[in-house]
Amino acid sequence: MKDDDAPLLLTPGPLTTARTTREAMLRDWGSRDQAFLDLNARVRQRVVEVAGGIGTHVCVPVQGSGTFAVEAAIGTLVPRAGKLLVLVNGAYGRRMVQICKTASIDCVAHEWQELEPVDAAATAKLLDADPEITHVAVVHCETTTGLLNPIEAVANVVAERQRGLLVDAMSAFGAIELSAKRVRYDALMASSNKCIEGTPGVGFAIVRTEALAKCEGNARSLSLDLFDQWRGFEKTNQWRFTPPTHVLAAFDRALSDHAAEGGVVGRGSRYRENCKTLVDGMRAMGFQTALPDELQAPIIVTFLLPRDARFGFKRFYDLLAQRGFLIYPGKLTQGDTFRIGCIGQVFPDDMRRAVAAVREAIDEMGVKECAP
Amino acid sequence: MKDDDAPLLLTPGPLTTARTTREAMLRDWGSRDQAFLDLNARVRQRVVEVAGGIGTHVCVPVQGSGTFAVEAAIGTLVPRAGKLLVLVNGAYGRRMVQICKTASIDCVAHEWQELEPVDAAATAKLLDADPEITHVAVVHCETTTGLLNPIEAVANVVAERQRGLLVDAMSAFGAIELSAKRVRYDALMASSNKCIEGTPGVGFAIVRTEALAKCEGNARSLSLDLFDQWRGFEKTNQWRFTPPTHVLAAFDRALSDHAAEGGVVGRGSRYRENCKTLVDGMRAMGFQTALPDELQAPIIVTFLLPRDARFGFKRFYDLLAQRGFLIYPGKLTQGDTFRIGCIGQVFPDDMRRAVAAVREAIDEMGVKECAP
Repeated sequence: MKDDDAPLLLTPGPLTTARTTREAMLRDWGSRDQAFLDLNARVRQRVVEVAGGIGTHVCVPVQGSGTFAVEAAIGTLVPRAGKLLVLVNGAYGRRMVQICKTASIDCVAHEWQELEPVDAAATAKLLDADPEITHVAVVHCETTTGLLNPIEAVANVVAERQRGLLVDAMSAFGAIELSAKRVRYDALMASSNKCIEGTPGVGFAIVRTEALAKCEGNARSLSLDLFDQWRGFEKTNQWRFTPPTHVLAAFDRALSDHAAEGGVVGRGSRYRENCKTLVDGMRAMGFQTALPDELQAPIIVTFLLPRDARFGFKRFYDLLAQRGFLIYPGKLTQGDTFRIGCIGQVFPDDMRRAVAAVREAIDEMGVKECAP
Repeated sequence: MKDDDAPLLLTPGPLTTARTTREAMLRDWGSRDQAFLDLNARVRQRVVEVAGGIGTHVCVPVQGSGTFAVEAAIGTLVPRAGKLLVLVNGAYGRRMVQICKTASIDCVAHEWQELEPVDAAATAKLLDADPEITHVAVVHCETTTGLLNPIEAVANVVAERQRGLLVDAMSAFGAIELSAKRVRYDALMASSNKCIEGTPGVGFAIVRTEALAKCEGNARSLSLDLFDQWRGFEKTNQWRFTPPTHVLAAFDRALSDHAAEGGVVGRGSRYRENCKTLVDGMRAMGFQTALPDELQAPIIVTFLLPRDARFGFKRFYDLLAQRGFLIYPGKLTQGDTFRIGCIGQVFPDDMRRAVAAVREAIDEMGVKECAP
């Protein structure tokens, strides 16, 4: 599906984008000019639409990667006297703990095994036991494994106990349904270059307006202050500091394409087909997924390394790269794995070609047995 | 000089870039793939070359705008028990004070008038009077006015007193000579989208390696930790968090063009000619600059508003925009002004056309007298 010689990115992002999205970056924009201010307003509005938060939520974009948006949301939403409970079952949960430690934000972590979803009942107990906890943070799709956490159940116990919820929905937003109409959260964080299929350089938080209005002076960082950033947008549609104008133009274009594909439902449906095509094809060769199907999000799949000693990840990667596919190393703490992403401007036919390339690579390595 | 219908950006940035620079963004990159890692290494090396810091300094890029790089440098270089003296003569000096306040970094500011350069002798006295000050921060070209601060003199008094110096060289780096061989600083901060003429989305600090090596654990922000970011690059040439891949490809291309134009000397010489063409043309109409020529950097020029009541900035802006030129409002605390930038992919002929457009706009508004 690529119209140039760049490889197809079967990774958790940055990922393959549409040529038209990249072409939207061919124009320069004056960052204070009306044409660009209109673009900002449109992008912010469209993101809130995708989230199902019109009337109740606002989108506050922030320069940088998704992690910048996560840090900005934590630093802005959790008050200086607040305390954050982080539900951890992978690297991105652990990263939120690290964010708190570095910024001296009071934080407690509860860990699950990486191949287990976080648990709402356990979260309820933790909240009941510690009244000092003001906020809870959780990852929607843990890209470490590809696991989908039960956000609705967690959101319910958090809301019942009147704490604030922060959802790192980086790799799920735009493809996996999580309507702000039904699920109560204070902030949900994502970025331009995941399921919306824009280019990287902008993160954003979708924030409940009522919660954000109380956050003046909370932020521990001027650059990452979502309250001030929001105030700036509301006043003038301008960014406080230089925005990545070209990336925003690409994001605007990508949001149009997302809507044209049928929004979250349409995008999610293509990704699910990508994922099924990949997993079926890999299993037919003997590969095994780290997760059972019921925990697997259609975003990125973790495969166990074949036991066969002729298999080596570096060579496997290179052989696939030669065939035009970039995959991703594993990130599990225990066990040797690799990952293949299902998101971006890739289609079931691409996944079939990818599976065929895996078969060729395996054959060239002389691997007889793909089971772990 | 533009090959599309976008206006010419006579602003302090984002500014007009070369078509070839924007075209470098037409390809997707895997952020962990060797081709992109090579690009990272090349960009970092080239920036240090431009700074004259090979062997003594490293370039640590950071996602986001220039302010993100400034905050990252302050937050990483100033130890937790340190104290920063900020020399202020404009909005960008004040912003560094704001960064410190928000991040609870001990900070003292000394203010000069906006139309006065900061002063090395006064700085020496401040340092002698307060032994707790560990670092000094100063802006090279204050974009508020367009004034060039005497960095060499300041650097000398700071070095003699064995304090660290941080230079916000955002709008000067790559066009105004400030060799790390001659001027001692701990960090100099700039961004992709100023005089290097890349697209916006990446800031960077050029840091004295010896100083950076002592900064582990200083950072107040995970996203803005230049020590960790540096360690990551040194180990693997990888970014810790998703990089703006397309913006980096454009930056790489822009650095090639910068070298081809003769580096800092060649780029600075074109900007000086742009600036002279602009100022001469505007003065011939009766406009006056806010600064005397000896304090004016060839980056952006502040003009005083004409006294003539028929002049209105909004209408002036629109009339110039209709003619394909975007200018910038003034930022002085006192007095009504506007600004016209001289940087980016613009040439003396563009400045002549801009001056002609100003004349047309003035005539259309019925302004008879451009003097303030």
